Amino acid sequence: MNKEQIKAKIRTAVEAVKENNPMAGSITNTVTINLVANAQLAVGGSAAMVYLPDEGEFLAKAGGAMYMNVGTLFPIYEETLPRAAKALQAAGRPWVLDPVAIGIGELRTKLLRSFKEYKPGIIRGNASEIIALAGLWNLSGGTEISKVRGVDSTESVRSAQMAAVTLAKWTGGAVAVSGETDLITDGSMVAFSHGGSHFFERITGAGCSLGGVMAVYLSEASPFIAALTGAAIYNFAGRLAQSKVDGPGHFQTQFLDELYKATAEEIADNPFDLEEVKE
Amino acid sequence: MNKEQIKAKIRTAVEAVKENNPMAGSITNTVTINLVANAQLAVGGSAAMVYLPDEGEFLAKAGGAMYMNVGTLFPIYEETLPRAAKALQAAGRPWVLDPVAIGIGELRTKLLRSFKEYKPGIIRGNASEIIALAGLWNLSGGTEISKVRGVDSTESVRSAQMAAVTLAKWTGGAVAVSGETDLITDGSMVAFSHGGSHFFERITGAGCSLGGVMAVYLSEASPFIAALTGAAIYNFAGRLAQSKVDGPGHFQTQFLDELYKATAEEIADNPFDLEEVKE
Amino acid sequence: MNKEQIKAKIRTAVEAVKENNPMAGSITNTVTINLVANAQLAVGGSAAMVYLPDEGEFLAKAGGAMYMNVGTLFPIYEETLPRAAKALQAAGRPWVLDPVAIGIGELRTKLLRSFKEYKPGIIRGNASEIIALAGLWNLSGGTEISKVRGVDSTESVRSAQMAAVTLAKWTGGAVAVSGETDLITDGSMVAFSHGGSHFFERITGAGCSLGGVMAVYLSEASPFIAALTGAAIYNFAGRLAQSKVDGPGHFQTQFLDELYKATAEEIADNPFDLEEVKE
Repeated sequence: MNKEQIKAKIRTAVEAVKENNPMAGSITNTVTINLVANAQLAVGGSAAMVYLPDEGEFLAKAGGAMYMNVGTLFPIYEETLPRAAKALQAAGRPWVLDPVAIGIGELRTKLLRSFKEYKPGIIRGNASEIIALAGLWNLSGGTEISKVRGVDSTESVRSAQMAAVTLAKWTGGAVAVSGETDLITDGSMVAFSHGGSHFFERITGAGCSLGGVMAVYLSEASPFIAALTGAAIYNFAGRLAQSKVDGPGHFQTQFLDELYKATAEEIADNPFDLEEVKE
Repeated sequence: MNKEQIKAKIRTAVEAVKENNPMAGSITNTVTINLVANAQLAVGGSAAMVYLPDEGEFLAKAGGAMYMNVGTLFPIYEETLPRAAKALQAAGRPWVLDPVAIGIGELRTKLLRSFKEYKPGIIRGNASEIIALAGLWNLSGGTEISKVRGVDSTESVRSAQMAAVTLAKWTGGAVAVSGETDLITDGSMVAFSHGGSHFFERITGAGCSLGGVMAVYLSEASPFIAALTGAAIYNFAGRLAQSKVDGPGHFQTQFLDELYKATAEEIADNPFDLEEVKE
Repeated sequence: MNKEQIKAKIRTAVEAVKENNPMAGSITNTVTINLVANAQLAVGGSAAMVYLPDEGEFLAKAGGAMYMNVGTLFPIYEETLPRAAKALQAAGRPWVLDPVAIGIGELRTKLLRSFKEYKPGIIRGNASEIIALAGLWNLSGGTEISKVRGVDSTESVRSAQMAAVTLAKWTGGAVAVSGETDLITDGSMVAFSHGGSHFFERITGAGCSLGGVMAVYLSEASPFIAALTGAAIYNFAGRLAQSKVDGPGHFQTQFLDELYKATAEEIADNPFDLEEVKE
């Protein structure tokens, strides 16, 4: 695919979401669950959130795609997340994994390790998280010694490129590394999406809600296109919102407005570069 | 009651809430729990949220009314919700039931079925949910085959009128069906409340927070008046907020401001129609 | 310390946070968890929230300080909160306790009683909560009969002064009593911090997020300075935000902006009075 073909597919994905209002269920953390839902609604999708195992299975079958984020784990997640992942696989539905806070706690490690076999369509995280996940899955480019610090990014996206490519090759899907520039790869191509805002680091949930939005697009597009479309609308809306505000409170409010108003054309035209992966 | 009498009662309810600052406790979902509390505070009430069984019992006795919403169920709810419902009944306190996502999962079905005997003062939902609840309770107008899709409304409020009337007759309280126009009935009268905003569908929690606000008014008014007052302030504030913004982010912010600023006169004057139920 | 020395220390604390971006983990309620994180980020800190016992222990060791709020308790907290408190003590890390809703439910009472031996660096609450905690810990100035009503303040801060001083002497840390004027004491000095907004009572989470912000400053300052700095920035940003808005929706948005923009100088210059505790 060349850039023009990719832009055409982005436009198609955005328009399909606005028209079909696809539901992407989530199992996600309580800190940013509200923003995840509001961002999914703002771009034209539908949201539903659950905690219980049979409800997770229901959403896996009911939605076009699903979003699973391992922040603020509850004890019941030991059962809920694997059953949802299994139901997604059985139903042939793609999902987005957000390995937030990888390295903290036994249950998170156990769950994230188990997801290797369920091959999420999109993995979204910052550089540290992507490198740590590749390490946990014993893939090259990863490291077993997590440098993860809280939920912040501590490494540039380039440093996670090998891990991202290897992960994408393993899953057959896409991996999105969030940073000042976002890196999106399907294992053979790497796209760098530009834009965004320094306020993304001063509000909670920019990354989580991006994962939820990618799940909405994943209902209507391939993993690579869905991940790139999510990154593009976030970078477009983030830059625009930042230009209109002077603090993180109004930034979040304005950002939701810009997500809602962004057209397929504007999202597809958000600047990105393409590289081929050298074997 | 004629329209002028109803408007007088709405004014009284609004003023009583602003003066007495009544506490309406909630057991509600984590997605919209913050908006529920903020909306309750904006209209002049007090908020308190819990998860544990004995805390649910405490709130049942401590507040003027209570709000129970079955979204994002936790395992402990199997114990908490029935015990709170029982405590409310024992204390003679009214409560608002929001049967969100009815039809998804075993626990939700079991809990919603059990609530039939506890007769909530107000039941609030969209048309699909009200029809499904009447079906679950084996009342006419309902259907056992839920058409519920996520948390969206898929049927117009008129289609739920028979279910709403039958439910209201069973509980002796009121039923509110949220839609483009809101339907509120006590089983003998049906009111249609006008206004609102298309942005209610593009933010999460418009319905949940409306239920929480109805619980605040239920501390100071009859179920029918409380439900109609809640619908009226939402329709008034929603229409006004929409006229001042161009996206869902600012809509939510502005909507809370309008809830806060709305006077008893303005709320009572929000347009509504009355019909008598034909037997 | 005289006022000028205190103001110098406040400036140092604010600048250290802006420079070092310290992480203060939280175990807190689901109602206001998002605002806690956003406020911590706005002032320059980092946030991380968990529920599970081993994750609580991890955060206790990983952060500069921690915030624990006993609102919306989950069953697992019976294990999580004591283990986190123990880990904090073992690691010599200070923490902020918010005894919200003290008096409601068995688990909350049991947990709050157990915290007496873990001596939180800062205790933050409204007057009723501080008096009730002193009572629960059998300290003078407290009362066993809690007058706590929901999460509202029902007593002026002066009425809690004896309880606050006794608690601070017991813990060797500081106690902050939130009210129209805020009282902060380390047991030998009492500071009264002025400013704030009447909108603090019309949004949910002003108190909780203040506790989270105090934990951020506690990573870089003594308990007394951290508590006073938190009160000062809230009073400064609250007064400023109120002057620019006319409702609680925009107040919250503007307040986060003002937290973000407040300079060390402005925070240190927020008016406060000092008294010595008479023995």
